[in-house]
Amino acid sequence: MADKENNSPDNEFFSRRHIGPNKLETASMLKKVGFNNLDEFIAAVVPKDILLKSKLSIGSEKTEREALIELKRIASKNESFNSYIGQGYYNTITPGVILRNVFENPGWYTSYTPYQSEISQGRLEALINFQTMVCDLTAMEIANASLLDEATSAAEAMSLSRRVSKSKSSTFFVDEQCLPQTINVLKTRAKPLGIDIKIGSPKDSSREDYFGIILQYPSADGSLNDYTSIVGEAHEKKALAIFATDLLALTLIKAPGEFGADIVIGSSQRFGVPMGFGGPHAAFMATKEDHRRSLPGRIVGASIDSHGNIAYRLALQTREQHIRREKATSNICTAQALLAIMAGFYAVYHGADGLKTIAMRVNKNTKKLAKIILDNGYQIKSNSFFDTVVVMTGDKTENILNKALTKKLNLRRVSKNSIGISLDETVTGEDLNVLASLFCDDYSLSDEPSTESIPDDLIRKSNYLQHPVFNRYQTETEILRYIRRLCDKDIALDRAMIPLGSCTMKLNATSEMLPVSWPEFSSIHPLAPLEQVNGYMELVSELEDMLVNITGYSAISLQPNAGSQGEYAGLLAIDAYHKDQGDKERNICLIPKSAHGTNPASAQMVGMKVVPVECDNDGNIDIDDLKAKAELHSKNLSALMITYPSTHGVFETTVREVCSLIHGYGGMVYIDGANFNAMVGLCYPGEFGGDVSHLNLHKTFCIPHGGGGPGIGPIGVVKKLEKFLPGTHNQTSSPVGPVSATDWGSASLLPISWMYIKMMGSEGLKRSTEMAILNTNYIASRLQGHYEVLYKGETGLVAHECIIDVRPLKESAGVEVDDIAKRLIDYGFHAPTMSWPVAGTLMIEPTESESKYEIDRFCDAMINIREEIRKIESGDLDQEDNMLKNAPHTAKHVTGDSWEHSYSRQLAAYPTKNLEENKYWPPVGRVDNVYGDRNLMCSCPSMDDFD
Amino acid sequence: MADKENNSPDNEFFSRRHIGPNKLETASMLKKVGFNNLDEFIAAVVPKDILLKSKLSIGSEKTEREALIELKRIASKNESFNSYIGQGYYNTITPGVILRNVFENPGWYTSYTPYQSEISQGRLEALINFQTMVCDLTAMEIANASLLDEATSAAEAMSLSRRVSKSKSSTFFVDEQCLPQTINVLKTRAKPLGIDIKIGSPKDSSREDYFGIILQYPSADGSLNDYTSIVGEAHEKKALAIFATDLLALTLIKAPGEFGADIVIGSSQRFGVPMGFGGPHAAFMATKEDHRRSLPGRIVGASIDSHGNIAYRLALQTREQHIRREKATSNICTAQALLAIMAGFYAVYHGADGLKTIAMRVNKNTKKLAKIILDNGYQIKSNSFFDTVVVMTGDKTENILNKALTKKLNLRRVSKNSIGISLDETVTGEDLNVLASLFCDDYSLSDEPSTESIPDDLIRKSNYLQHPVFNRYQTETEILRYIRRLCDKDIALDRAMIPLGSCTMKLNATSEMLPVSWPEFSSIHPLAPLEQVNGYMELVSELEDMLVNITGYSAISLQPNAGSQGEYAGLLAIDAYHKDQGDKERNICLIPKSAHGTNPASAQMVGMKVVPVECDNDGNIDIDDLKAKAELHSKNLSALMITYPSTHGVFETTVREVCSLIHGYGGMVYIDGANFNAMVGLCYPGEFGGDVSHLNLHKTFCIPHGGGGPGIGPIGVVKKLEKFLPGTHNQTSSPVGPVSATDWGSASLLPISWMYIKMMGSEGLKRSTEMAILNTNYIASRLQGHYEVLYKGETGLVAHECIIDVRPLKESAGVEVDDIAKRLIDYGFHAPTMSWPVAGTLMIEPTESESKYEIDRFCDAMINIREEIRKIESGDLDQEDNMLKNAPHTAKHVTGDSWEHSYSRQLAAYPTKNLEENKYWPPVGRVDNVYGDRNLMCSCPSMDDFD
Repeated sequence: MADKENNSPDNEFFSRRHIGPNKLETASMLKKVGFNNLDEFIAAVVPKDILLKSKLSIGSEKTEREALIELKRIASKNESFNSYIGQGYYNTITPGVILRNVFENPGWYTSYTPYQSEISQGRLEALINFQTMVCDLTAMEIANASLLDEATSAAEAMSLSRRVSKSKSSTFFVDEQCLPQTINVLKTRAKPLGIDIKIGSPKDSSREDYFGIILQYPSADGSLNDYTSIVGEAHEKKALAIFATDLLALTLIKAPGEFGADIVIGSSQRFGVPMGFGGPHAAFMATKEDHRRSLPGRIVGASIDSHGNIAYRLALQTREQHIRREKATSNICTAQALLAIMAGFYAVYHGADGLKTIAMRVNKNTKKLAKIILDNGYQIKSNSFFDTVVVMTGDKTENILNKALTKKLNLRRVSKNSIGISLDETVTGEDLNVLASLFCDDYSLSDEPSTESIPDDLIRKSNYLQHPVFNRYQTETEILRYIRRLCDKDIALDRAMIPLGSCTMKLNATSEMLPVSWPEFSSIHPLAPLEQVNGYMELVSELEDMLVNITGYSAISLQPNAGSQGEYAGLLAIDAYHKDQGDKERNICLIPKSAHGTNPASAQMVGMKVVPVECDNDGNIDIDDLKAKAELHSKNLSALMITYPSTHGVFETTVREVCSLIHGYGGMVYIDGANFNAMVGLCYPGEFGGDVSHLNLHKTFCIPHGGGGPGIGPIGVVKKLEKFLPGTHNQTSSPVGPVSATDWGSASLLPISWMYIKMMGSEGLKRSTEMAILNTNYIASRLQGHYEVLYKGETGLVAHECIIDVRPLKESAGVEVDDIAKRLIDYGFHAPTMSWPVAGTLMIEPTESESKYEIDRFCDAMINIREEIRKIESGDLDQEDNMLKNAPHTAKHVTGDSWEHSYSRQLAAYPTKNLEENKYWPPVGRVDNVYGDRNLMCSCPSMDDFD
Repeated sequence: MADKENNSPDNEFFSRRHIGPNKLETASMLKKVGFNNLDEFIAAVVPKDILLKSKLSIGSEKTEREALIELKRIASKNESFNSYIGQGYYNTITPGVILRNVFENPGWYTSYTPYQSEISQGRLEALINFQTMVCDLTAMEIANASLLDEATSAAEAMSLSRRVSKSKSSTFFVDEQCLPQTINVLKTRAKPLGIDIKIGSPKDSSREDYFGIILQYPSADGSLNDYTSIVGEAHEKKALAIFATDLLALTLIKAPGEFGADIVIGSSQRFGVPMGFGGPHAAFMATKEDHRRSLPGRIVGASIDSHGNIAYRLALQTREQHIRREKATSNICTAQALLAIMAGFYAVYHGADGLKTIAMRVNKNTKKLAKIILDNGYQIKSNSFFDTVVVMTGDKTENILNKALTKKLNLRRVSKNSIGISLDETVTGEDLNVLASLFCDDYSLSDEPSTESIPDDLIRKSNYLQHPVFNRYQTETEILRYIRRLCDKDIALDRAMIPLGSCTMKLNATSEMLPVSWPEFSSIHPLAPLEQVNGYMELVSELEDMLVNITGYSAISLQPNAGSQGEYAGLLAIDAYHKDQGDKERNICLIPKSAHGTNPASAQMVGMKVVPVECDNDGNIDIDDLKAKAELHSKNLSALMITYPSTHGVFETTVREVCSLIHGYGGMVYIDGANFNAMVGLCYPGEFGGDVSHLNLHKTFCIPHGGGGPGIGPIGVVKKLEKFLPGTHNQTSSPVGPVSATDWGSASLLPISWMYIKMMGSEGLKRSTEMAILNTNYIASRLQGHYEVLYKGETGLVAHECIIDVRPLKESAGVEVDDIAKRLIDYGFHAPTMSWPVAGTLMIEPTESESKYEIDRFCDAMINIREEIRKIESGDLDQEDNMLKNAPHTAKHVTGDSWEHSYSRQLAAYPTKNLEENKYWPPVGRVDNVYGDRNLMCSCPSMDDFD
């Protein structure tokens, strides 16, 4: 801590860079909200009975350089061996132009989920490219963008099958050649849903009755099998046939859709996304049009805008879990957008020919290797293969594996007497030589191995990626411009404040992001031997310790790779605990009506029965109703799920009382960590009554939103729940199975949160929370007299976010919440959260990272819009033809040769002076969602459609 | 070469990514220009007598990954010791947000010199921030942006002094405490100009007569001296007082301007720019308003646009060497724009308080160290210091230096019995401990060392960086948005083709750029012992070998850090050779009138007399005139400088004849390598008659233009000139002294060209050249019938660039070349080179990297503009009020409530359909250059000026 020794003023600290307002501005903002100092202010916001007496003890802040040096030291403890383990994870070459201009570009990684279509056309187009790529390669009709990992995608496919299958069976047949981690997650997921998992060879499936069957194609042992008859049999049983597949292999082998597959899932990791010790990578799911409304995850579709031009937006939103709530079959919310975008660009960059070239090289290398192995007297398990061979190594197994380790290679130990080797696009001739040398001393690689590895019937004959987007951008200059052009269509945090309530769009600092690109973190295979990943283990352990300290819980699991997965894992732990206690009937989950839709969806997935609890007029939990419901279900009470501070943006003063009430009935309290950023350093959920919480590392702890993911949702639990945390894939004794494909989920992003916590230190973290709350109250204060804040705490203050009620404006001016949201685009802003948790309202969350300058600019815009609405109210502006109804205004529109509106062009485009310095032009006018859902198109539109 | 072994199709090669047109497109373009294949086409373009019979032999192409792996292996041979050498180079912390969003952002590094002001407002603002920072810290009136390095800046200051001083003396007094490399370069530069360098202690300067004196402040030995009386004496002698200074020190010590300095120079390296083994970094020069017309390098000034709003542009352009030609006192052309932009952002990010905090910490650490050293019985040379102490180590010198090396520290060996130690912002308490341990076994660092190191009289009392720009962007979110906002104002290669003739705006591929950020290259001090830089030495040696192979010369010097410096070094070599041969009278340099202005300026700087040679009507060298001039000056003929292919874009068929003519008279031929990209793989200048060439690595070999620099201008020479290549700073025996501050100039950029050459291989390089020529001829062909191509070769073809003549349009439609250039902005393009080499023309160079799609888009725009002009010619459009005269059109203008033009808004802004998909809006209207030069303002305008 050199800087401390040197007694430097705090302007060398990271917290000064992370937190928006400086000292002077803080003082003026406190004055505006009526306080003299932060302590008094916070004491008026946070209930006394939960406010921390003691400070956090995670140490004092480190400078950016100090933290980077320390993390580099940790990272250097990872050893990067050449990995041939495969099993769904491959080395890949991220094209430099994609690495630098997407993965390392804040224009892409700081953007939010594209709910506001008009300012998201760039990422929506990139995602529809991903969907098109998946549909083309799998030969399916519709694909989503995207899912969390291959294993959970398989589980989602199982749920989808069960929902749409007409079979009465509760059995799900699993190919024994599925990836082991997929089988493990399927088991975890099946159990609470009452699904029987039957594992076996597909050829034995005909004897079974099942509602769905999942086949791994190519198989985990590398073999390529013709599943035509299996699919036929499945269909006869009214069951769905699911293929878990590999996109690169599909450039050479017959597509699942050509077998009649109903659902196809897999990972797009090897399309340019580093392995990163497990994630994040984008998984995918493709299915038939018929199942479109049951497809989990986000789907991008083309529609038209108010000028009749093609415009993209998220399609079929009414499917999503926050609409279906406890009727949802999936709780998926966050996707892996950034990684799907990268994989999509990888396909755009390579095109059909390029991908095929890569696949052929991988396959040829595999053939060369196979030939040498065969020539040297070993057997290979399958004659057919794409990139993977399982060698029957017999009693030489240990010997070969050890020899590999001394040469810094990781092979896959398939069994006591066989070894798997999977090749990828990075493998060179030299690599092949080293591999060959493991099996024989004397060999020569033939240039044209005669072995045929793809059976004739399985050779792909159909075309793919014929759309111009996969053919036009194959020079670096062209793809660079394409990437920039798409990026420029969008608003991300690098352009303006994104005041999204509940979504916490705070700074994703560069120093936090830099380590994610370090090869010490990015190049590690998730199944690398633990002794090679001491760096990761140290990182995980330190991060867990820090999160334990910050939450007040007893232990943390970093495995869940999204908030929804955290909820699921947390509820699984509660359920397992009750069962372990012999309380087998406890299956009621109380959830206030204000809860986020993932809460009931997750409860449903663990087999709980959701009982909604009312809220009072102030938006708080109705204690009487809660008491009544708890009493009514006292014998069966499993858990209460609450969000704290509430989704209404209020520190409810009763939280301690509520928790002990539930505990009194033998229930557990799940505190949703969505709003944990309002508690850090001020109070501990683990102290005031929570038993489990998930944390959104992508909200509170600075992992960027990436245009709709990745996220990470670790959970913290109290002591008695510790042993019910998600198990690992190796440890079969755990009472709860793994919930993600890999043990540490999206491990490669953990450095981001580690850096943030280290650089903020105890003081900085607390200050962050305080400033997030102050910024919000300052906004509430500035908007007073213009808009009504819907919910406030007892002292008239809000927490870290506030809901403003614009419903009265519908009556007075015909203005709806959408109109305000879209009008904000003309002012250069992303709208606040719209109509959630209360329809017809806007929920604003500035976070601590926004400066007073930017907050004032936003408030000015909101007030200006209110003035525009007043002109409608007064009749000075037409109710139908005004700048709100016609918002957002495109440049093409405002520069049109005719202008037939009741307001001027300048009022349309430049309502405030500062826009002259910095004007964002939306690429499309208001998007028509209904049209898009009626005319569903979820692949790249053809050029004809553009005309 | 795994790919070759695997026999992959060429779509895995980098050349496919680098070269725009694919095979099909190439065929169709060849057809358009009337050829069946590339070989026939090239045979028709390149004179038979110089076309290579044999292939290049630099090996076959490597894939991006292979080249990166190989370079990483080389890089890892560099050892990064902790450097305390100082001497103008310091470790620095590049703020992550600047590293990622400026240094590693193609939006910044692929932009061109801001000659087209309207599409350069972002970088111009960033550069005026740099100038303001320099003016403020030095307390001077006007600063440029920027110069190449501190040593050449000192030389430029010497020339400026001589030009403006009224003194008759030809002596230049140099403080013996100037940095050694500065003194070396001053010596090199002074000699051919007939300046006597007198080196001594400033206190002895009163006895001398001189026209200028340069003082190092703080001194090389670290001391801080009061130069009030020295400056007074200089002014009495009508001499100029020059300060070489350190910007960080100036935050604490009295500014040079406060002593009455006339010129202040220095390096801004430690403001966030990595040392990179010597460069590139931005040097600066500040002076008094009176000398503004003599200030070398580029100056950014504020002016107004056609709407009366503030707009930036390059000021006082008439000073530049390409206007003054042989009367120029400087040949400086390229600046270090990208690095100046970084240093400016570093100041914006830290602000006055932040910089002062850093400086105080550095100074306090130095004081702590000094105290321990003093306490342990050593003497320190000076009581006053900022960051550097020279310790009198006596007979312990070697011992201490060796001890330092074992601890991986580099100290500065000042003399046999003294050691220099310079601290910087990265030094931690731990580092101090290690340093202290070199001098004593037992010590304790005091927290508040009592030593005073800055004399009272020298403590800075004046303010600096008070402008809002240095106060508003100090959170990461704010500066991120500021960086993005500025970047978005500009057109760089990541947005559109930049068809600049002579400037070769080809792809700067990400894989070429990645290694520049590797710490193995970026963190090395330029004076690190050679045994620590084996990686750099291998890189240099390989690059030299490859360039020897490509040019046909015998040896290469990578020292010149810009094309102009290469010219200077090349002519120095010629001059030294003649003198070495006893030909002391050979001082005539023949230069065709079509030459770039740096040619005569460079000749002047080496003391040659320039004799212009006429060109014929076809733009070729007038052979008769050349013969006559050569004959006339045969006894005194030193050199002929030509550019090949000519600046008119033609492969003159007489080049071999011309060279032997000159050789016949005992002269040498300098072939300017500006157009070397048209020769690579097709012919060797070293074979067909050149004796020296400089190469522009920033043109032909892919170093990006960085918004106006960095560039690198290595020279190649024939055998007999080898020993006259620029000397190194250590080797005093060389007949020619060093021309740059460090031995390998801008060493950290060499990986870019190394990567390019390795990834293209012999075949790819040749193909590049061929495609650059084909692209140009395709454009010439498409524009036929619309514009006239001014010069063509004998076969009716052009080389890699072509000049179109728009002068007739002035007569026919009143349209000037500016109007077309500015109108192109409305179409989203950067204009071609304007009025050079022929006034009233446009010179177009597409490079090989542009796709047919983009080239067609450009041709369509040009043709569309011609149609617009035809409408003026026909009277359908007004001569004064038309879309060309009013171009470029800002969004604010086209969305104005009133529109009083003779053409529609849509024709103004969306003249072609594809603009609807991708519209660039210039942030300002046409910039008024005359107004700006009359009302010169070269610092950030105050907020009042904006109103």
